[in-house]
Amino acid sequence: MTVSQAAKAFSARGIDVIDLGLGEPDFDTPSYVVNAAHRAAKAGDTRHTVDGGAARTKAAVAEKFARENGLTLFATEILAAGDSKQVIFNTLMSTLKDGDEAIMAAPYFVSGPDMVRMLGSKPVTVTGQRSNGFKLTPELLEIVIASSTKWLILNTPSNPSGAVYNEGELQALGEVLSQHSNVLVLSDEIHKHILFDGLAFMPFDATCPQLRDHTPIVNRDSKACTMTGWRIGCGAGLGKFISALATVQSHSTTSACSIAQATAVAVLAGPRTEVDQFHKAFKSRHNLLFQGINAIDGLSLHVPKEPFYAYIDCLSLVGKFLRDIAPLDSDKAVAKFLLDEAHGAAVPVSAHGRSPFFRISAAASGEKPADAVACTRVAVSKLG
Amino acid sequence: MTVSQAAKAFSARGIDVIDLGLGEPDFDTPSYVVNAAHRAAKAGDTRHTVDGGAARTKAAVAEKFARENGLTLFATEILAAGDSKQVIFNTLMSTLKDGDEAIMAAPYFVSGPDMVRMLGSKPVTVTGQRSNGFKLTPELLEIVIASSTKWLILNTPSNPSGAVYNEGELQALGEVLSQHSNVLVLSDEIHKHILFDGLAFMPFDATCPQLRDHTPIVNRDSKACTMTGWRIGCGAGLGKFISALATVQSHSTTSACSIAQATAVAVLAGPRTEVDQFHKAFKSRHNLLFQGINAIDGLSLHVPKEPFYAYIDCLSLVGKFLRDIAPLDSDKAVAKFLLDEAHGAAVPVSAHGRSPFFRISAAASGEKPADAVACTRVAVSKLG
Repeated sequence: MTVSQAAKAFSARGIDVIDLGLGEPDFDTPSYVVNAAHRAAKAGDTRHTVDGGAARTKAAVAEKFARENGLTLFATEILAAGDSKQVIFNTLMSTLKDGDEAIMAAPYFVSGPDMVRMLGSKPVTVTGQRSNGFKLTPELLEIVIASSTKWLILNTPSNPSGAVYNEGELQALGEVLSQHSNVLVLSDEIHKHILFDGLAFMPFDATCPQLRDHTPIVNRDSKACTMTGWRIGCGAGLGKFISALATVQSHSTTSACSIAQATAVAVLAGPRTEVDQFHKAFKSRHNLLFQGINAIDGLSLHVPKEPFYAYIDCLSLVGKFLRDIAPLDSDKAVAKFLLDEAHGAAVPVSAHGRSPFFRISAAASGEKPADAVACTRVAVSKLG
Repeated sequence: MTVSQAAKAFSARGIDVIDLGLGEPDFDTPSYVVNAAHRAAKAGDTRHTVDGGAARTKAAVAEKFARENGLTLFATEILAAGDSKQVIFNTLMSTLKDGDEAIMAAPYFVSGPDMVRMLGSKPVTVTGQRSNGFKLTPELLEIVIASSTKWLILNTPSNPSGAVYNEGELQALGEVLSQHSNVLVLSDEIHKHILFDGLAFMPFDATCPQLRDHTPIVNRDSKACTMTGWRIGCGAGLGKFISALATVQSHSTTSACSIAQATAVAVLAGPRTEVDQFHKAFKSRHNLLFQGINAIDGLSLHVPKEPFYAYIDCLSLVGKFLRDIAPLDSDKAVAKFLLDEAHGAAVPVSAHGRSPFFRISAAASGEKPADAVACTRVAVSKLG
């Protein structure tokens, strides 16, 4: 938040700040989706839907899971919500009891541990080797899994590290999990549609079919389709999970916005032309920004294959000085330094449970990636 | 739910069911609001906003509270969410601890006690005299208020009873509350814009200014403006409440739909022509339906002044028979009987904590209120 506030202060003074850590693309929502929303609103689709999602929303989501995960789902096994984060939170709320633990790999998505703590349970974070993109391994899982473990929150591709689990890695985790029937797997597949370099997304439940009944899935296509503002996400899983989740949603927020549901229906069934163009642009930014940053002395890139986020190791800069100022003592200090000197705002990854790292993303458009690389190179060269 | 499912089964068989208990108007959202949403979407307002609401949303909400409650609020004292229910839930979540109690008058809005229980605290329900619309009085409040009380959830006008607290009643409650500094007041003002018969809405915080710092307010205009599907609500209160509430929202759902926020801005600043027409229609339905039902032997109306909901006492029908069928033993049985015989679906109020009552609403349009009255009269006349 400090970096973000400092970035806003610069902007308020008229100084251009390139936000390298942006979590959402700067493309507008595809026009055919915008038009579908307007048609729905004009047609009077402006009353609240069934709490867990309108029938047509669920049908569109069912088709999506059939297409992408090879799953055949009943309407009772699907839920639409006001965001994928809401699905995760309500899933945890409907299942966690005092004393329960939830395992997640660090770096984790920023709300992960806070969610679990807010619900009176204990987040258990574990970090893999940096050479392996900090991925969870069966050995690490064995160490932390316990009778008090309720959830493994599995996020692939990972926000913020960009790590992607392959089939063998998931199967190895599945073997450990098969010995612990108390553990459920929350498969967070939110970034599955933004993959490059020939990487294919492997759904955990397809890789470990024996655990399918223990694996609710959380998903949304809003980032890949540049629809983040509409706030729509979905969950799938056994009817008993979805039913418990729907009860929490019913008492806490009721249904997702009816018009946002209409956009989900439109985009899931719609042409991929514009979405494919977004992906091409992400890839081009990825090449420019991530490789450019990686080429700067003192900064190195981990897990560069996932295009949307990348993970910058700034250990070599920690302890360095700029003129008479105190040494950079953390990734936060490096982020602040880059903001002051290069006007590039980054998200220090210590907020995600690992230091000293930044998250950068492929969200910035136009000249910004090239400018960010150039300014960062100049700024870093000033350090002694 | 049973009545609702039975109603759906009738509809599936092609039998018209008039839903007397509908919680939302059947008017479409005003066209200027629909158009404002489309303009916002076309202009690229499709990225997520600051978690607690975009600056322009907060500005529109601030103007609303200044106009309606006489409050001058900073942006830090306002929050926009994906529904008023979400504001209530997250407010409770950000404040309730194990062992805390929340007082609410029965009949209560249907999620009230479940919300409190889900959060590990204890709902304390209390019922006033039926001649007084079941309103909470200072005497009743004195009986249930305790050192463990964290919240009084005050809902005026009430869903489902339609009761409206006047200035003197609120001041009398305020005097009791002034002696209990541990108690916060959640002022649920969601139905404030649908009042007839010269009734004026009294905001609790304006009536009891000494308690203003203890009184977060929850509001939405979506029902009065027939915008229920868009899912937008707002909260106001001291910065410390709003900040805690925003933290919960940030970790559980983030921002409300950006386009729904645009509709809120449009309707709060927009012309009232269409909204005034809705109100006229509600009043006409109110007269037709509520007075018609009240004129039927065996059914009587409590608190008939609030137009959107009314509260039907069916005690005289409990124990009666239709042909050889078992006697009607509850309001649920009466609701089922009316559904079977008159095809009018009602919400049995035992779900709201009081028996034997129905909630009916002014939401049904066209010929439906007159038909419902006629069918109900015929059905009731068959009872022996």
